[in-house]
Amino acid sequence: MPVEAPPRHAPRLSTVAAGIVGSEILKIAAEIRAMRESGERVVNLTVGDFDPTYFRIPRKLEDGIVRALRAGETNYPPSSGIPALKKAVVALYERALGLRYGVDSVVVTGGSRPGIYGTFRTLVDAGDRVVYPVPSWNNNHYCHLIGADGVAVPCSAEQSFLPTRELLAPAVRDARLVALCSPLNPAGTAFTADALAGICDLVLEENARRDAEGARPLYVLYDQVYWTLTFGGTVHHTPVALRPEMARYTVFVDGISKAFAATGVRVGWVVGPPDVIAAMSDVLGHVGAWAPRAEQVATAAFLADDEAVAEYRRTLHDGLQQRLDALYDGVCAMERDGLPVSAVAPTGAIYLSVRVALNDRRAPSGDVLRTNEDIRRYLLHRAGVAVVPFQAFGSNDESGWFRLSVGAVSGEEIAQMMPRLREAVEATNGG
Amino acid sequence: MPVEAPPRHAPRLSTVAAGIVGSEILKIAAEIRAMRESGERVVNLTVGDFDPTYFRIPRKLEDGIVRALRAGETNYPPSSGIPALKKAVVALYERALGLRYGVDSVVVTGGSRPGIYGTFRTLVDAGDRVVYPVPSWNNNHYCHLIGADGVAVPCSAEQSFLPTRELLAPAVRDARLVALCSPLNPAGTAFTADALAGICDLVLEENARRDAEGARPLYVLYDQVYWTLTFGGTVHHTPVALRPEMARYTVFVDGISKAFAATGVRVGWVVGPPDVIAAMSDVLGHVGAWAPRAEQVATAAFLADDEAVAEYRRTLHDGLQQRLDALYDGVCAMERDGLPVSAVAPTGAIYLSVRVALNDRRAPSGDVLRTNEDIRRYLLHRAGVAVVPFQAFGSNDESGWFRLSVGAVSGEEIAQMMPRLREAVEATNGG
Repeated sequence: MPVEAPPRHAPRLSTVAAGIVGSEILKIAAEIRAMRESGERVVNLTVGDFDPTYFRIPRKLEDGIVRALRAGETNYPPSSGIPALKKAVVALYERALGLRYGVDSVVVTGGSRPGIYGTFRTLVDAGDRVVYPVPSWNNNHYCHLIGADGVAVPCSAEQSFLPTRELLAPAVRDARLVALCSPLNPAGTAFTADALAGICDLVLEENARRDAEGARPLYVLYDQVYWTLTFGGTVHHTPVALRPEMARYTVFVDGISKAFAATGVRVGWVVGPPDVIAAMSDVLGHVGAWAPRAEQVATAAFLADDEAVAEYRRTLHDGLQQRLDALYDGVCAMERDGLPVSAVAPTGAIYLSVRVALNDRRAPSGDVLRTNEDIRRYLLHRAGVAVVPFQAFGSNDESGWFRLSVGAVSGEEIAQMMPRLREAVEATNGG
Repeated sequence: MPVEAPPRHAPRLSTVAAGIVGSEILKIAAEIRAMRESGERVVNLTVGDFDPTYFRIPRKLEDGIVRALRAGETNYPPSSGIPALKKAVVALYERALGLRYGVDSVVVTGGSRPGIYGTFRTLVDAGDRVVYPVPSWNNNHYCHLIGADGVAVPCSAEQSFLPTRELLAPAVRDARLVALCSPLNPAGTAFTADALAGICDLVLEENARRDAEGARPLYVLYDQVYWTLTFGGTVHHTPVALRPEMARYTVFVDGISKAFAATGVRVGWVVGPPDVIAAMSDVLGHVGAWAPRAEQVATAAFLADDEAVAEYRRTLHDGLQQRLDALYDGVCAMERDGLPVSAVAPTGAIYLSVRVALNDRRAPSGDVLRTNEDIRRYLLHRAGVAVVPFQAFGSNDESGWFRLSVGAVSGEEIAQMMPRLREAVEATNGG
C-alpha cells in the first residue's frame, strides 16, 4: 500500500504548517552532506553543535547518566522536571549569577529549544507584537508558529550586532515580548552591563506606564544558553542581576546543550516568575517536550559538583578559544593584507562573525557575486568552507556577514582551510 | 530579589496559557504523594507508567544506550530523527503490521506525546472541528491548545468505551480530524476489525465527497502506543491494513514508552503521508521535542532485534496480564457476591475499566457519595486505593467508572488491596 501523492486540491495542512519554513541551516547541512558523499573536502563551520571527536560531554555527566540508567531511572519524570534538578538549577543561579529563585520558578525542558517555544506560547497570543533583534536565531520561526506580529530590529556590526535601548525603543510600545540572547547566536558577542541595563530600564518604564493603565506587561525572553562560554574577560550579565525589578518580567532560557557540549542529551530549563512557569509547565506538559529521566538525574548531580563543572569549563573554553582565535587571527591577517574581509573579536558562544565582502565582485567563473547566498556558495565550492549567512538569522543586509561556528572542527582543519579561504577571496575581481 | 506576585491586573499570560488545564491525573498524584509522606499506605493504580522495581526497560536497550553514550553519541540528532531509527520503524511496521512506508513517512519525536501535539498542530487550524470519543486521553487538552472546536462523542460500557461508525457519523461532516486510540487509554479495550473498518469506511466516504468538492480532507490520528500490549487473543488492527486507501489520511502515533516500559526514555515516532510528515518535522523541529541521540541509536538497534523484542514482550505481557487478571477476578468475585461493582475484561494496554457504582450511597461518615470524584476520594482514604475517574478522560457520566493502571503495582499489593476495596464498598449504605 504505497502512500499516494496528496490530491491536487491540497493544501491539506493547517495554515501554520502550510506556511512553515524549516531551518535554513539544516538545508545547508544537506548540501554539505552531499558534497562530502561525493568525496569533496568541506570544513563545516555551519552547525551550532559539537563534534564528539573534539568535544565530549563531561565524563562525570556521562557516568552519571549510565549510573541512573543502571539504577532503573527510566520511568516518567514529573512533567515539569525532577525536584533535584530544579534545586540544582536554583543553587547554580544563586552561586554563579547572584539570582535568587525558588523551585517553583523552574521548569525542566527537553533541551533549550522547547523553552523558547514554551515562552512564546505561554506569553504571546496570535496578533501580539514580538520584538527581536536581527541577526538572531529562529525568532522569525517562533513568531510564525504563534501567529505573532514579529518586529525585526536590525543591528549592525557597529553595535556588535546587539540591540540597544535606542534601537528597541521605537518598537516596544504595546509589544508583548522582547526576545534577547546573550552571548548572541549568531554573532558571538555579548551585552555589556550598560547596554543591557539600558534595555531593562526601557522595559521597566514601559511596564510602569502599563501598570498605571492596567495593561498586560512587556516580557523579556533572555536566552542565555551560552552564558558559561565567554572569552577575553567578558562577563555575562542578566537583566535580573542588573535590575532586580526585572524578575517580574524576565524569562530565562537555558540548558546543558552548549555549556557541556550536550546538544543531543536534551536537558534544558526555563527560569521565571512562578505564575508564568506554572502555566508553561502545563503547556509543555501537554506538548510533551520533556527531558529524559536518567539525564535529568545525572544533570542534577553534575551541576552541583562545582569542581567538575569548573574543570570541564576550562577544557571546553580552551578548545573553543583556540579555534576562535585561529579563525579571528587568520581573518585579521587577510584584512591587514588589504583583502575585503573583517571579523568581530570573539567574546562569547561558539561563533565568530566574519565579513567576506565579495558582494558585486566577479568570481573566476565570470559570475558576479551579488548576495551573501552567492558568496556562501562560492566559498563552499571554491574553498570547501561552509558558513551560514546572516540571512539565515533574519537579516536582510547583503554586505557579506557570516556566522562561523567552531564546535565541529579541529584546529588543524582551520589551519589548512585559511589559505584556501584567502585564495578564494583573492581569486575574485572588481567590486 | 524575591519574585513578587503578579500585579492585580493580571491576566499576564496568553489566552491559551491562561485557559489551560493541567493533567487531572497529575493532581491526583500530588494527593497520593502527600498521603504517603504522612505515612499512609496507598496502592497507586493511577499512573500510566511502570515502576522500574517491577518493569525495567529491556536489558539490551539499556546496554545499547550505555554503549551509544560511551561512543560519544551526544551531539544533535537530525531534527526529524536519525536515519537508522526511521529505517527500523519502517521495517518493524512492515514485519509486524503489514504496513509499507518509506523513511520519508517517519518523524522521530521525544516520546509519543509530541507526536499527538504535532499532528494536531500540523493538521488543525483554530476553529477547525476535531472529533474524539470519550473516555479518551487528553484530546480535550490538545483541542484547547490549538483552539480547535472539539466534539466529544460519549462511548459507553456497552461499546467497551470504543467509538463506532454509528456514533461518529453525525460528527465527522466537515471535521478536520478524528482522534482514535487502540488499545484504548483509559479503558484497556481494543477495536475489532469490523468496528475499525466501519470507521474507516465512514472516513473514506466523507473524503470521497470532499475530493469531489475540492475540500480539505478528514484525517485520522491513530494513537497505537499500546499496540504490542494485547491480551486474551486480541489482535491489533490498523486503519491502513484494513483499508489501504486510508494511508492518505492516517497519522500513526507510536513509541517505545509503553511497549518497552520506557516512559522516561523519551523516544517516539509518527508515521503518515510524506507531505504531512514533512510539515510536522518542521513544526516539531522548531518546538524542539526531539528524542535524545543515544536513545535513538539504541532504539534503532533494539527494534531490529526480533528475538530480543519478542522475549521482552513475553515477560512484560505476563507481568501485566497477571496483575490485570488479579484485579479483574477480584472485581468479578465482588460482583458475584452482589456488590455494585463490575469490570470490562482486559484486552489491551495496561488498564482495566472498573465500575464502583457507589453513586448516591452513603459513606460511614454519613456523607452521600454523589459523583465519581466523591467515590474516588472515598476509596483513596477508606481503602488506600488510588484510581482515576473517567471524568479525567473527558467523560461526564457519573456512574462510577474508573481507570485502574497496573504498571506501578505488584501482584502482592493487588492481593492485599482487594479485601480493603471490598470492605470499603460494603461499608456504604443505600443507593
